[in-house]
Amino acid sequence: MLAVTILGNNSAVPAFDRHPTSQVVTLDGNNYLVDCGEGTQIQMINYKIRRSKISHVFISHLHGDHYFGLVGLINSFSLLGHQQELHVFGPAPLRDIIEMQLRVADTKLCYPLHFHTIGGAATLVNNDKIEIKCFPTQHRVECYGFSFREKRKPRKLILEAVKENNIPLHFYENLKHGEDFTTSGGEVLKNEWLTTGAPRGKTYAFCADTRYNEGMIEHIQDADLIYHETTYLDHLSERAYERFHSTTKQAAQIALKAGVKKMLIGHFSSKYDTLEEFESEAREVFLNTELALEGVTYKV
Amino acid sequence: MLAVTILGNNSAVPAFDRHPTSQVVTLDGNNYLVDCGEGTQIQMINYKIRRSKISHVFISHLHGDHYFGLVGLINSFSLLGHQQELHVFGPAPLRDIIEMQLRVADTKLCYPLHFHTIGGAATLVNNDKIEIKCFPTQHRVECYGFSFREKRKPRKLILEAVKENNIPLHFYENLKHGEDFTTSGGEVLKNEWLTTGAPRGKTYAFCADTRYNEGMIEHIQDADLIYHETTYLDHLSERAYERFHSTTKQAAQIALKAGVKKMLIGHFSSKYDTLEEFESEAREVFLNTELALEGVTYKV
Repeated sequence: MLAVTILGNNSAVPAFDRHPTSQVVTLDGNNYLVDCGEGTQIQMINYKIRRSKISHVFISHLHGDHYFGLVGLINSFSLLGHQQELHVFGPAPLRDIIEMQLRVADTKLCYPLHFHTIGGAATLVNNDKIEIKCFPTQHRVECYGFSFREKRKPRKLILEAVKENNIPLHFYENLKHGEDFTTSGGEVLKNEWLTTGAPRGKTYAFCADTRYNEGMIEHIQDADLIYHETTYLDHLSERAYERFHSTTKQAAQIALKAGVKKMLIGHFSSKYDTLEEFESEAREVFLNTELALEGVTYKV
Repeated sequence: MLAVTILGNNSAVPAFDRHPTSQVVTLDGNNYLVDCGEGTQIQMINYKIRRSKISHVFISHLHGDHYFGLVGLINSFSLLGHQQELHVFGPAPLRDIIEMQLRVADTKLCYPLHFHTIGGAATLVNNDKIEIKCFPTQHRVECYGFSFREKRKPRKLILEAVKENNIPLHFYENLKHGEDFTTSGGEVLKNEWLTTGAPRGKTYAFCADTRYNEGMIEHIQDADLIYHETTYLDHLSERAYERFHSTTKQAAQIALKAGVKKMLIGHFSSKYDTLEEFESEAREVFLNTELALEGVTYKV
């Protein structure tokens, strides 16, 4: 099951017990970390996220509230005896920042760390379980959103029909992947007679920090769930534009135009001590909006 | 009044709600930050430390648990509209690390940030209130302790005696600084007849991360309070040596040999979930030992 757990929902300065950006996307026991603001590893302890299950980290951009917790996490993994490979994806200078900090501390990691520079719209991970892509957003510095698409599962055999038609065992996998079967007599048995479809794989998109940006729509179209920043309420749309951020209503417009099913909102400015208005404003434009609350897991 | 508030008392990996190293030394409304592990700014909010009063930051060494919170703090100061100068003291590569992270984020700070490279045993700050020095410790990488000496306050006039002897007003300051007064008739009036001594200025020393190291003693001799790391209990003295850390009893030996009045212990390894034994073991050697507990302010 694809899901996302929010570790930090605040913008740059921690306030009101809200933390800088971080979230964990989970699928079948794999944890994919998206952004890693300061204090992320402590939030992971608070919310019982299994650090050992994190295999990939995606950093949207190099503003500190999105990555200042990363080197500490990399370090702790080593001190905790992490064994598996860790793949870090982010803008190019991140590699130098990590390497410099490991070098001055004379740190030798006890596990393989692979750094991948991201750029443009690209596929970052593609295996039989998940496809993860990045896409550019409009921010003050180079910045990327990430989409997570659960792969369509194999179809299920209708055992009765399969046996009745004497389908050979070796052809079962082909059936699961949608092929028709041709009998020795040349008769074509349609796949849909022999199998039932698995449910469509779900899609989640993290839209990072961004100005109102319709260019993003093609990358999140029809997603089951998106997370969009709403640093400001609607009354500060001018400030949002100047600072390359979005308001509640702008985020909701994007959700609406992209035809997504549901939207989480976060990255709240520290000027706001309460959040109710974020939700109500966004819902005026896109009803299926929820606040991204720290410690809460949202099923996609 | 010289005092120290503990913000983090754990070693490298945060655990059991203990945080990486950071503490604030306070004197007459000035806050001096010593080390700044990840999450320090959040600890400051938790414990109501006035961030705006921080004028100086001292970083002992470049292991992440002692400085990964610094760039975030520098950043937040700017976002919060900090105005006063901030002086950061630390090993040379720290400047590059800070500058690189500000550069990639395209951050222009709204206050003057001055970086000072430390080395050897040296005086870092010396004004009419405080003298702050650094001294080398024995750690796996270049590492420094810091001593804070409250300046002796001016002596207090015995007003009755001053008036009786017709000391002119303009000489009062000289009396406060210990001078004798010579009358027009050539008679010397001893300072101690005219003033009483202010209490001696107090001294606090932060001994950073270190192996058992008698070379440190001359720098902390007779201090009113020291903080010494005790990463391990006595049974792991071999591991302490290998990893350039100290045990309870080693720290207590240093306190004893340096003739200090009181010792706080901290930098506890994450292997220990309770701390009572740290205190009891250290007290076997040096009785006036206390655990450095997070959120607690210790008067020097």
